[in-house]
Amino acid sequence: MNISHIEHIGIAVKSLESAIPYYEKVLGLKCYSIEEVADQKVKTAFFMVGQTKIELLETTDPNGSIGKFIEKKGEGIHHIAFAVDNIENSLQECESSGVQLIDKTPRAGAEGLTIGFLHPKSTMGVLTELCEDKNKK
Amino acid sequence: MNISHIEHIGIAVKSLESAIPYYEKVLGLKCYSIEEVADQKVKTAFFMVGQTKIELLETTDPNGSIGKFIEKKGEGIHHIAFAVDNIENSLQECESSGVQLIDKTPRAGAEGLTIGFLHPKSTMGVLTELCEDKNKK
Repeated sequence: MNISHIEHIGIAVKSLESAIPYYEKVLGLKCYSIEEVADQKVKTAFFMVGQTKIELLETTDPNGSIGKFIEKKGEGIHHIAFAVDNIENSLQECESSGVQLIDKTPRAGAEGLTIGFLHPKSTMGVLTELCEDKNKK
Repeated sequence: MNISHIEHIGIAVKSLESAIPYYEKVLGLKCYSIEEVADQKVKTAFFMVGQTKIELLETTDPNGSIGKFIEKKGEGIHHIAFAVDNIENSLQECESSGVQLIDKTPRAGAEGLTIGFLHPKSTMGVLTELCEDKNKK
């Protein structure tokens, strides 16, 4: 697998409205996009920090995965996403190495990326996303 | 505050020996350093991913902060560290904005950095570290 950089870090928050001012006014980052991803039941806010985005995630449904995460663990870092050059091959390599996949085949993610998640049971507790930007090619 | 990039992401693991092969053989990253930080009661392993390091943290004492974290929450992402250009001013700015500090004054961290932690109560559940590399100047 060829990972070039950390594409983004996903952070579960109760409210984008409460969280954005901290990231903007205290940390001095700029929210450049707010996007709703209906099939993941989240509203997202993005900030650029060098090569890496911070993706704040607010649930739009208490039964969505972010709603359940916050209920169980509270607000906090939810996942880490690595940029790969070939998402199909990368997921296959993981599976061949015995890593349990959440997404056996790639699917559409936020910001036009093609993504797949690895199960935290196989990654020492870290919910891990692999992403390829097919629009860059 | 002027944040240039994400300096590292700290990940709590039960065992470096078990975790390093996943990062190296599955993700294809290279462990370039293993370091014990005695006053934080951890043994750390570092991997470079673009601009950002992954810092795996294994406790050397069940009563250390990583030991307690794993006991309470299990293995997983522990903290995020932002690179700043002036650690003293950055911590002061946070305090002036009402952010609770874990470190009121900067202290020495791993890899020769000067660091300070913000309390997750003030950062929507994200244990946040600010780091300055004073050796670069």
